[in-house]
Amino acid sequence: MTELRGIVPYLVTPFDADSGRLRERELQALVGRLIESGVHGLSPLGTTGEFAFLTGTQRDRVVELVVRAAAGAVPVVPAVAGHATHDAVEQSLRFQDLGAAGLVAIRQQLFPIPVEQAAGFFAAVGSAVDIPVVVYTNPVLGSDVGPSALAILADVPNIRYIKDASGVTGRSLSLLLRFGDRFGVFSSSADLPVTVMQLGGVGWMSGPACAVPRAAVALYEHCTAGRWDEAFELQRALWPVNELFQRYSLAGCVKLALTLRGLDVGAPIPPQPPLPTGAGDELRAALAGADAVIEETPWVA
Amino acid sequence: MTELRGIVPYLVTPFDADSGRLRERELQALVGRLIESGVHGLSPLGTTGEFAFLTGTQRDRVVELVVRAAAGAVPVVPAVAGHATHDAVEQSLRFQDLGAAGLVAIRQQLFPIPVEQAAGFFAAVGSAVDIPVVVYTNPVLGSDVGPSALAILADVPNIRYIKDASGVTGRSLSLLLRFGDRFGVFSSSADLPVTVMQLGGVGWMSGPACAVPRAAVALYEHCTAGRWDEAFELQRALWPVNELFQRYSLAGCVKLALTLRGLDVGAPIPPQPPLPTGAGDELRAALAGADAVIEETPWVA
Amino acid sequence: MTELRGIVPYLVTPFDADSGRLRERELQALVGRLIESGVHGLSPLGTTGEFAFLTGTQRDRVVELVVRAAAGAVPVVPAVAGHATHDAVEQSLRFQDLGAAGLVAIRQQLFPIPVEQAAGFFAAVGSAVDIPVVVYTNPVLGSDVGPSALAILADVPNIRYIKDASGVTGRSLSLLLRFGDRFGVFSSSADLPVTVMQLGGVGWMSGPACAVPRAAVALYEHCTAGRWDEAFELQRALWPVNELFQRYSLAGCVKLALTLRGLDVGAPIPPQPPLPTGAGDELRAALAGADAVIEETPWVA
Amino acid sequence: MTELRGIVPYLVTPFDADSGRLRERELQALVGRLIESGVHGLSPLGTTGEFAFLTGTQRDRVVELVVRAAAGAVPVVPAVAGHATHDAVEQSLRFQDLGAAGLVAIRQQLFPIPVEQAAGFFAAVGSAVDIPVVVYTNPVLGSDVGPSALAILADVPNIRYIKDASGVTGRSLSLLLRFGDRFGVFSSSADLPVTVMQLGGVGWMSGPACAVPRAAVALYEHCTAGRWDEAFELQRALWPVNELFQRYSLAGCVKLALTLRGLDVGAPIPPQPPLPTGAGDELRAALAGADAVIEETPWVA
Repeated sequence: MTELRGIVPYLVTPFDADSGRLRERELQALVGRLIESGVHGLSPLGTTGEFAFLTGTQRDRVVELVVRAAAGAVPVVPAVAGHATHDAVEQSLRFQDLGAAGLVAIRQQLFPIPVEQAAGFFAAVGSAVDIPVVVYTNPVLGSDVGPSALAILADVPNIRYIKDASGVTGRSLSLLLRFGDRFGVFSSSADLPVTVMQLGGVGWMSGPACAVPRAAVALYEHCTAGRWDEAFELQRALWPVNELFQRYSLAGCVKLALTLRGLDVGAPIPPQPPLPTGAGDELRAALAGADAVIEETPWVA
Repeated sequence: MTELRGIVPYLVTPFDADSGRLRERELQALVGRLIESGVHGLSPLGTTGEFAFLTGTQRDRVVELVVRAAAGAVPVVPAVAGHATHDAVEQSLRFQDLGAAGLVAIRQQLFPIPVEQAAGFFAAVGSAVDIPVVVYTNPVLGSDVGPSALAILADVPNIRYIKDASGVTGRSLSLLLRFGDRFGVFSSSADLPVTVMQLGGVGWMSGPACAVPRAAVALYEHCTAGRWDEAFELQRALWPVNELFQRYSLAGCVKLALTLRGLDVGAPIPPQPPLPTGAGDELRAALAGADAVIEETPWVA
Repeated sequence: MTELRGIVPYLVTPFDADSGRLRERELQALVGRLIESGVHGLSPLGTTGEFAFLTGTQRDRVVELVVRAAAGAVPVVPAVAGHATHDAVEQSLRFQDLGAAGLVAIRQQLFPIPVEQAAGFFAAVGSAVDIPVVVYTNPVLGSDVGPSALAILADVPNIRYIKDASGVTGRSLSLLLRFGDRFGVFSSSADLPVTVMQLGGVGWMSGPACAVPRAAVALYEHCTAGRWDEAFELQRALWPVNELFQRYSLAGCVKLALTLRGLDVGAPIPPQPPLPTGAGDELRAALAGADAVIEETPWVA
Repeated sequence: MTELRGIVPYLVTPFDADSGRLRERELQALVGRLIESGVHGLSPLGTTGEFAFLTGTQRDRVVELVVRAAAGAVPVVPAVAGHATHDAVEQSLRFQDLGAAGLVAIRQQLFPIPVEQAAGFFAAVGSAVDIPVVVYTNPVLGSDVGPSALAILADVPNIRYIKDASGVTGRSLSLLLRFGDRFGVFSSSADLPVTVMQLGGVGWMSGPACAVPRAAVALYEHCTAGRWDEAFELQRALWPVNELFQRYSLAGCVKLALTLRGLDVGAPIPPQPPLPTGAGDELRAALAGADAVIEETPWVA
């Protein structure tokens, strides 16, 4: 089974608002450049990928295009998001057929449900496929997966990783202390990846890594080599970029960053607004600060 | 253009958890019995209809079946729910083609967006179709549509109704005082329909009305005839039913009520749990209390 | 034991921001004018009275002044608010000694506690005094008192009334159906008082009634005489006033309304800001609309 | 002006629930033992100290007792908490007179206020006294102080420190990058103190440090000496203690820990409940794990 680790960018979904269609060429160009930059995997259809704004047909097409462009160079790990178990299982089987090497499972909810049922959603996905599953846990978005649910999921062999997007380092530590032998833990973009790596994490799944992939890879290499001072220095240089991504909509910010870098991936999918005036200047300055430490090359479709 | 008014039940979606498929026969039986009971319209695919738990194909099928079973006797007003404007517009056009006489528009969101963009979502739906649109506003579910958005939407001719699910009577009064000449206001199930009718409302869109349709129709007739004392008396008798529907999951409660009445529509769609043990007894007692005032006949598929 | 009913305004606390001292003369003038206007009781130190912004010494002084100015004409029912049981009991005994005819009990909380302990707070207050206690329940402020707590409190003789500030009419109906024989239910200002009276409520405890006392009294008299159409008409005329009080800070809005009426009670206690520019014009217009139906006379200290 | 740094435990308030009185002897014994254990300061009346459950007179007495017991060995930095500016300023002046070497300022709120007014509360405290002020920022408790407020407060000389209790490491990093030259940043107990120290923090203000003071001091010394591996190892050993303190009420957990260690400080102040059955065993095990690394001696009054 594919082992996941390292820098796995959450891909944005290039989209043309006027026609309501994917920008397929830009999506493939993004994949190519990220692989050239040394990333260790690719995760389309996450929150950064605006999954909720795409139809089922469009989601399938995104997976198909990313798998084709990746051409086996790195594992493709799309997010499967849904409210209903049957829907998530069907998506998972389709994505596996399309060539996904793993899945990030996101449970959406309108109303809270008991932990057994919440765990059952993920267990059904893990049992239906033959590839590793990353459980996404995000208390803010309502799809939290806590220790009780994870204890249940430890019995499902394909559930192999946790991606903790709580942004609370203490929580990552709790998960690592209790489940570190059973699950690999990925840092989220809002977190501090160096700290999660110090605590035993396996990598960083991150929207901002679309815009600063070489820096993210360098950070990861510092961590795996135990060069903590260099890692902290680099993280500090990247923080202004991460901060903007937290202040503004994540998808909108990554899309604008890529457009500034030369790859016109379009604006957030309507009715989401474009970023406010002024965000471009802030983002340009933050990217320049990051580039001064680790240079990223301009991107073109 | 079809005028909407009166009792418009939110239909549950009969579903077989094992196979992941609709129970089509039960859905059509439900439609038949509600029409016999005198309801003035039918609204599938709302929150009560578990829209978020159905695939796009299943949603289309639900509309097709309800339109066919209604056979023109009453207007069918399905809910169109989505995050993306392009997705909602496409669904709306499909539902109109399938015979919908109106639409309830629900905007879903993961993150808040400005009011202009939020209004733009509904305006796009209203401009795309030739049938009346009910704007759904529910602060709790995150899809609130406040006075500023409604002021924008007053310029879109097909936006004709508001369904305020806030449960706060003062808010309904504010909407009626400001927009009562432009939009018809429907009470939500959690509200007190008599008060909304006293304030000038046009009807009651309601999940519980699936289980007590004759009583709901009688309540509406008391209101339109100005028999406020009788209306209040009936509302008081129905309150224990409404209270249960607020305490437990709405879809789960309506489904259980219909099953108790003889129509096996299945449990909530997984991973949602069935209602807890004991809920059946509480519900049976509450329904018996309502039936003692206005008798509903047993239902069979 | 004093029976509470009718219109009981929540008094603002006239305050001089520069010196940090009460405006005692204005407080007594307010009491005098409200009694002349026919109100049935007076409740200082509620949320409208900015209790949390006053020291213990200042709270005692407010009760002393209001009791003296009321001179037995109507019952004075101050709010006792606290986190700790011992603190609330001590305040309650002091207020009773100072001449309070009843108490509104408010439990503040930083973190949720179990229902038995929450009920215990109110039971301790009710058992310590010889005057009737109104239990304040407000889910938004975190001091909710639900059906389970009220079932416990039904065993404490002095706990006699509920003031439901949830603003949700369905909730008031639930409380009245279950506890209407045991507790008197007061409408809150955010609610629709006519509806609560129709459902069996005993009166209206209200901040806005400070500014429109004659209208509030007339509304109550329509209700007790069963003149529902006149009551609804008056409520509709008052709604623009209530709406402003919901949009802006309640204390700030009542203070500005009184100042506009000629009684300079000062601004909200710092660090709370004064109302924004423009609120004065909106408020003046809303008061004029209300005065056109029931005239209130100008107020002077 | 006193410089604050290092380990500053938040003191619990020993309290006798039956009499409603402070346990003065136990409070002084706690102070003595913490100083023996090497802590660098003492902070009574924080959230851990249950400030909201004490009367004004009791708060003054706590400061008096702690200052007397500390006898100048370490700075005493009590929390000043209030809704009103005048109230906080009066408390601050009293505490300074009683011998406080600094203050932790906590703004409580019922309703949000604009950032200028929120900053004004802290500025008034800082301008009124001659001792350093720590601004407490805690989004969860509603008393958040963000970058805009801190930019205003940078102009008030006595505002010298920030205590960020958000638990989000990224936020601490943002504060340190933007304000690290102007304010000293303390880690909160829920945070990971090593990470905050790595980022440039000055110390750890912590409730749990009451129960594991020697370990907390050792952790700090590892950090200041740059022994990051040892620091991380110790933090990992302490985490099970911190985790319990997050799961249960902080004050209740510290009180129980001290009682288990031999100092009977009583239960949480009513109506707060004692910790649930079973918490004692969990806590005993976690403390034993911590003691196995750094031994703490039994405590007696």
